[in-house]
Amino acid sequence: MSVTHAKGFAAVGLEIGLKNSGGKDLALVHNLGPRNAAAAVFTSNRAKANPIIWSQQVIADGIATAIVLNSGGANCYTGSRGFQVTHATAEAVAAKLDLSTTDVLVCSTGLIGEQLPLEPLLAGIETAQLTADGGADAALAIMTTDSHPKTSVVDGAGWSIGGMAKGAGMLAPGLATMLVVLTTDADVPASDLDAALRSATRVSFDRLDSDGCMSTNDQVTLLASGASGIVPDAAEFRAAVTTICLDLALQLQADAEGSSHDISIETVNAANEDDAVMVGRSVARNNLFKAAVFGNDPNWGRVLAAVGTTSATFDPYDIDVSINGVMVCRSGEPGQSRDLVDLAPRAVHVLIDLKSGTDTATVWTNDLTHDYVHENSAYSS
Amino acid sequence: MSVTHAKGFAAVGLEIGLKNSGGKDLALVHNLGPRNAAAAVFTSNRAKANPIIWSQQVIADGIATAIVLNSGGANCYTGSRGFQVTHATAEAVAAKLDLSTTDVLVCSTGLIGEQLPLEPLLAGIETAQLTADGGADAALAIMTTDSHPKTSVVDGAGWSIGGMAKGAGMLAPGLATMLVVLTTDADVPASDLDAALRSATRVSFDRLDSDGCMSTNDQVTLLASGASGIVPDAAEFRAAVTTICLDLALQLQADAEGSSHDISIETVNAANEDDAVMVGRSVARNNLFKAAVFGNDPNWGRVLAAVGTTSATFDPYDIDVSINGVMVCRSGEPGQSRDLVDLAPRAVHVLIDLKSGTDTATVWTNDLTHDYVHENSAYSS
Repeated sequence: MSVTHAKGFAAVGLEIGLKNSGGKDLALVHNLGPRNAAAAVFTSNRAKANPIIWSQQVIADGIATAIVLNSGGANCYTGSRGFQVTHATAEAVAAKLDLSTTDVLVCSTGLIGEQLPLEPLLAGIETAQLTADGGADAALAIMTTDSHPKTSVVDGAGWSIGGMAKGAGMLAPGLATMLVVLTTDADVPASDLDAALRSATRVSFDRLDSDGCMSTNDQVTLLASGASGIVPDAAEFRAAVTTICLDLALQLQADAEGSSHDISIETVNAANEDDAVMVGRSVARNNLFKAAVFGNDPNWGRVLAAVGTTSATFDPYDIDVSINGVMVCRSGEPGQSRDLVDLAPRAVHVLIDLKSGTDTATVWTNDLTHDYVHENSAYSS
Repeated sequence: MSVTHAKGFAAVGLEIGLKNSGGKDLALVHNLGPRNAAAAVFTSNRAKANPIIWSQQVIADGIATAIVLNSGGANCYTGSRGFQVTHATAEAVAAKLDLSTTDVLVCSTGLIGEQLPLEPLLAGIETAQLTADGGADAALAIMTTDSHPKTSVVDGAGWSIGGMAKGAGMLAPGLATMLVVLTTDADVPASDLDAALRSATRVSFDRLDSDGCMSTNDQVTLLASGASGIVPDAAEFRAAVTTICLDLALQLQADAEGSSHDISIETVNAANEDDAVMVGRSVARNNLFKAAVFGNDPNWGRVLAAVGTTSATFDPYDIDVSINGVMVCRSGEPGQSRDLVDLAPRAVHVLIDLKSGTDTATVWTNDLTHDYVHENSAYSS
């Protein structure tokens, strides 16, 4: 269950009154050891929230013993006063758990440009009771517009990884998106954690592009307690981290704000992987195509118009496009009838054959719906 | 009025049954001379429609004596059969008006990936009666989802420019967007027409980014008859072309699909003009900000999150952002209360001060609305 599935972790989720909607809004995760190795990837947005700036300093030495997360406020574009709130939050967690302040990661999520009140944070941390089964509550506490908590576990040979994630809007990574905390009882040094995490996020969260909007607060954290006493095979561990990241990424896609379709854009026979990702991302960000999918309209011309804006290697007049198994465009001309395409199911598969090489990549996105517009026109009210 | 305002042009708009919605769908404009200089800019999308491929060949020598435009079908991704339709259309116009086929420009607009039927085009061209007051009908005939025709005129000292434009969706230029035909009776050689047109589109159509989706069929054409007998001052002529392009661009913005706000994003004190355009375009393409404006929500954090994804020169924590005159963000911290911002009017002005230089640019966009999603989920049905 979530971040307390692996041995050597305690967690809690509680309500401290930050979220207008009510509900739990503060989570703490404590690595009980014996190891305290950690790795994290952060948003590449130059507009970084205060907790990102703080956590990047904390993670620099590969050591973190606790992470505190709040919903109900991003603490971004809140200046030096906002940074002091982040710092004081880390200090309070350190005092509570008898740790060094510089080993406490901080994450925040919510509205940008509003000060986060310190008093409820300090009071909540003071009363928090972390337990070995607190992972489920922690996953609840980091939700914003998510309709349900996202958790996942993967079990290795005597070791395991558990995790939680939040994120439903402003969902386009670079590197990492939304808030994710993974915990493992495997005994893995920080440098190997970092390599495994970067390898995993590159092909999971980094290829989720629900709405093209990159967050200021994205952070994916991996904490290792070593409590299993087992040093796993590096490739096996990396595969497990990739599996859990991919599972959480697809859970985020399935719950993206207002979405009615989950769209997988698979680009094949690309000259290289970067080209395949570029083509997929361009389609994923095309509002016209995404609105067409909402209307169950297999408008493949909008796919090609989006592909044509990229610098990927391909002949624009020798592309095949299939939608849910129907090759609607063959060699740049109308193929099978678009009437054969069934877009009623939630899952949509777009296959783009560039005929220019052997590389492949899949980018995941959602459709553009009335509900997306509605949720995001009313978010801060 | 429209493309027959300037002397030396005849035009017509008629209904030939291409548009499912009915109404005029074929336009012809004939340059009666004595000059036949021409210039055009085209979409930079690598996915180019057949009429774009054809017209790029026609314009290469700076001579064009007629242009034929149809709505009701883009003739894009229709292969060699589609190209033959474009070619046969130009041949029919040449035969009708006694011109060289290679001096006839062709434009098409409508759904991508469907064959355009040749018979109605040939029959329509055969019966067309071009007149000196046919400009208004021509402007009607190029409309797709436009709610009304867009025309504009600018008068110089003894010479003038008139024009028509269509475009309501897939509205993001690079270079040029949508279909625009400008006609002038000034006596200007093709090379000067080209320079004036590129200079004008760079700061008008190129900075209109309604929905971030680049078309496959964009073409802006300028035809000069020389019928006034006047050779205008080059700077004066360029200014007039810029004025008419800007007027038509803002008419397109005001009629963009489903929009309820016209948003001007003015970036000031940029290190250079490219930075200012890049910042403006990033905000213009941010769905979350556009949805917030639809909901009359001055969510300035979304402006900064979009700015932060660019490589422009600026300090992310020393930016000012004003919305409709209220400085909601001052030096990267909350400024005046967001409650002071009135987003009820259609016009929205976003002012971004990068504090990094002296250059300025404005990018125009629209909000993201329920109606945009609705129109674009039902376009091809």
